[in-house]
Amino acid sequence: MLLYLDDIAPGQRFNGATRIRIGEERIKTFAAEFDPQPFHLDEGAAEASIFRGLAASGWHTAAVTMRLLVEGGFKPAGGIVGAGFDELRWPRPVRPGDELRVESEVLEVRPSKSRPDQGLVKLRTTTLNQDGEAVQISVGNVVVPRRRKL
Amino acid sequence: MLLYLDDIAPGQRFNGATRIRIGEERIKTFAAEFDPQPFHLDEGAAEASIFRGLAASGWHTAAVTMRLLVEGGFKPAGGIVGAGFDELRWPRPVRPGDELRVESEVLEVRPSKSRPDQGLVKLRTTTLNQDGEAVQISVGNVVVPRRRKL
Repeated sequence: MLLYLDDIAPGQRFNGATRIRIGEERIKTFAAEFDPQPFHLDEGAAEASIFRGLAASGWHTAAVTMRLLVEGGFKPAGGIVGAGFDELRWPRPVRPGDELRVESEVLEVRPSKSRPDQGLVKLRTTTLNQDGEAVQISVGNVVVPRRRKL
Repeated sequence: MLLYLDDIAPGQRFNGATRIRIGEERIKTFAAEFDPQPFHLDEGAAEASIFRGLAASGWHTAAVTMRLLVEGGFKPAGGIVGAGFDELRWPRPVRPGDELRVESEVLEVRPSKSRPDQGLVKLRTTTLNQDGEAVQISVGNVVVPRRRKL
């Protein structure tokens, strides 16, 4: 069901059913294209780094999180369009073989003053690994249309 | 030259010399894997969307920005390791054919109280298109080692 601003309230939760496994090869090919640093590319170098082992780029985790969100239950009419983030952090590295899923909670719903046909939903999304440990926490603002008055 | 916390001060700027062109095909393949929404995948659907034309996923822009940062002049010893972001937003869509570059400025340098061997550098990074328009603005905290005392 497509959601309009009028359907959304603080405290609502959306948990994604999808899990995505992050393989070692994709960690390395993503990093080679977008974040070519030794601790994302090579086990030996990664052991000696702050990560103490191969870790996915945070941007890889962020991109996979977006996929999980798009496949999850939070389906605003007009799509998931991010106006920006108030917070984005990676409390724990993503390791080869980790299986990620997302949980989201609505923190705030704000109708726009200048655009009566839309508003912003502030959503906290936690990306969890197979052990239930948070690997990414974000607080973002999503542009959501209002239901048209007939 | 590798930078230690002791080498970095507020107001320092780092401008990347690299430009990366975002092609239409990569916009679509990135979106197919990580952000499969119509306005990132199909021109027709994109025209009817809030973006009014095909636009790269914000996560694609973020990932390319990371590549530009890694290739830029800000080279902390230990690599660019993000502890998290205070802000991340996309003021303007990235269109097929756009050529991106980055400019960064150090906002703050904080030695760690609990870890005397490292600290945090707060860096604002602006990603610009070929017309000098900002397509992404981020304020992130990078973990940077301190120079070892002999």
